[in-house]
Amino acid sequence: MTPATTPMPPRLYFAPGTCSLASHIALEVSGARYDAVKLDFSASQQHAPEYLAINPKGRVPALVTARGVITETPALLLYIAQMHPQAGLAPLDDPFALAELQAVNSYFCATVHVAHAHRRRGYRWADDEAAQRSMHAKVTQNMGDCFAYIEGTLLRGSWVMGDAFSVADPYLFTMGTWLAGDGVDIERFPRVAAHSRRMRELPAVQRVLPLHGL
Amino acid sequence: MTPATTPMPPRLYFAPGTCSLASHIALEVSGARYDAVKLDFSASQQHAPEYLAINPKGRVPALVTARGVITETPALLLYIAQMHPQAGLAPLDDPFALAELQAVNSYFCATVHVAHAHRRRGYRWADDEAAQRSMHAKVTQNMGDCFAYIEGTLLRGSWVMGDAFSVADPYLFTMGTWLAGDGVDIERFPRVAAHSRRMRELPAVQRVLPLHGL
Repeated sequence: MTPATTPMPPRLYFAPGTCSLASHIALEVSGARYDAVKLDFSASQQHAPEYLAINPKGRVPALVTARGVITETPALLLYIAQMHPQAGLAPLDDPFALAELQAVNSYFCATVHVAHAHRRRGYRWADDEAAQRSMHAKVTQNMGDCFAYIEGTLLRGSWVMGDAFSVADPYLFTMGTWLAGDGVDIERFPRVAAHSRRMRELPAVQRVLPLHGL
Repeated sequence: MTPATTPMPPRLYFAPGTCSLASHIALEVSGARYDAVKLDFSASQQHAPEYLAINPKGRVPALVTARGVITETPALLLYIAQMHPQAGLAPLDDPFALAELQAVNSYFCATVHVAHAHRRRGYRWADDEAAQRSMHAKVTQNMGDCFAYIEGTLLRGSWVMGDAFSVADPYLFTMGTWLAGDGVDIERFPRVAAHSRRMRELPAVQRVLPLHGL
């Protein structure tokens, strides 16, 4: 007779200041059992061989599950929503509403996150420091433009998609935590600022924030 | 008695040379009824008021449906797969496999597409022309690095996810059509090049390519 075993819970690799905060909050809100492991980017732990064996892209988030590793925030957010349907984190039975949610998350990852990344990661796209400084100089404008669009159009109600909380909410909240460092006062966007305060009132968010130094 | 009406088919807005090719192929492969409308980017039709009323982001693709507009390639690809389950374009009943597919599509949109966009759209991220030239100069290296990762790790078999064709295949194919213009010889990546040839053999792809000038 073999002893009963409990499957290992999924393990989230995260780092403070990164978009991994969104998946971390989504996991905590979902009620999932999970472990969280912090990487120290100042010690380049994301480039250590042990971590590259998990995520060869050398980035966070990565979620190690019994079946394999999932990377990329929009993929993780949908996965968390699908694995915990009782938490109601996405309109799983409505392809159109789900597409609207996925469009928001794609915009966050491919436009807003990319705009932000030009502040400190300009070396990804140009080798010379003058060009990197030039990219850095435009980040305040670009993040301001993104959040003007979010404030005026994308954010539909109390929550991103309207009345229902979804995985887009921790994602927007995460981007919002970057604004001050990007030279943008979140109070320019009253609806976004109210959303951020609403997020901070959630016990699940309050449990996660200290782990991210927030 | 009111006459029988047929609902308007969804309408895809596309432009040659853009990632809208991926959704266009996916729609054609799915067997969907749809209309396709070409925008002339050289005439800035994507910034015309009539189009901004459809997609205020001024980009393609956009799919106008009876319920509203869907934008962003990863969202459109999942929507097309969900609306046409008989076409088998995504592992809709397996959240882990779907997350792997979504991770691939997120990587394409947030890393590969963004690397490519620095060739001609550097003005998005820096105002001065010297910086834009510097970004332009790094595109060949970055796209080469992305496709080395695709060749070695991401592309699993005959199709992106392995044995089964999915919406990731038209997306990879679309990125591959950009390589020559980005200064990268696709033949450096034999598995990617074979995938591209495999795609061009599909009748659905052959029907769509001329509309994109390919």
